[in-house]
Amino acid sequence: MSEKISVENIGALKVLTDKHFAKEQLGLSSMEVSVNRLPAGTGVPFVHTHKMNEELYVVVSGEGMFYADGEEFALQEGTLVRVAPAVERAIRAGKADLCYICIQAAENSLRQYTMTDGVISETKTAWMK
Amino acid sequence: MSEKISVENIGALKVLTDKHFAKEQLGLSSMEVSVNRLPAGTGVPFVHTHKMNEELYVVVSGEGMFYADGEEFALQEGTLVRVAPAVERAIRAGKADLCYICIQAAENSLRQYTMTDGVISETKTAWMK
Repeated sequence: MSEKISVENIGALKVLTDKHFAKEQLGLSSMEVSVNRLPAGTGVPFVHTHKMNEELYVVVSGEGMFYADGEEFALQEGTLVRVAPAVERAIRAGKADLCYICIQAAENSLRQYTMTDGVISETKTAWMK
Repeated sequence: MSEKISVENIGALKVLTDKHFAKEQLGLSSMEVSVNRLPAGTGVPFVHTHKMNEELYVVVSGEGMFYADGEEFALQEGTLVRVAPAVERAIRAGKADLCYICIQAAENSLRQYTMTDGVISETKTAWMK
């Protein structure tokens, strides 16, 4: 497989322990991504901000709470949270383990996307023929 | 909640239908993100490339196949795939529904991250006191 494509298998998310960062292993150049599992009743032990990077949290399973600039709100499967760099943030699990993906990328860096950046190819895979 | 923070609830991923894009709703400026569910036995009906954006696919549940520049490889829960912009790509579900998150962001746009971009705050949430 070429350097244009990289693949990593981190295993079933329900047995994930702690936090898995993906940038270095995959050679990502546009984002850092972590796949995270916080055991029920536990939380990240610090509040943090960012200098340049926007963050997006995507809750994959479980429940918890998100702290952002002094407010707290509930998280459940399918909750997406965007925070600008300067926002003070932290996250914790509730009565169930909280599994979430966190992506950081440089604020205001996206120039074009989806229909303006994507190009449909003439190529067909076996399942399209 | 301020414009520095935005939240969306798309519901349980197991009942997600089709594809949900998040950028517009959340006001993301660094990435476009889709949360996707392909029913068992179905696939995206076209191959595509990108002009500027790197993509990362994170498989949340199920199984399937990834097509990249003429090669195919298996996907399972916990598979992460990075593809550079010019890679011809497509994805399909296998015998189970394939749930995955796809993130696109501008290649080579990340300047600093995690320990070089993140700043630990003095603030403590209720669960840290």
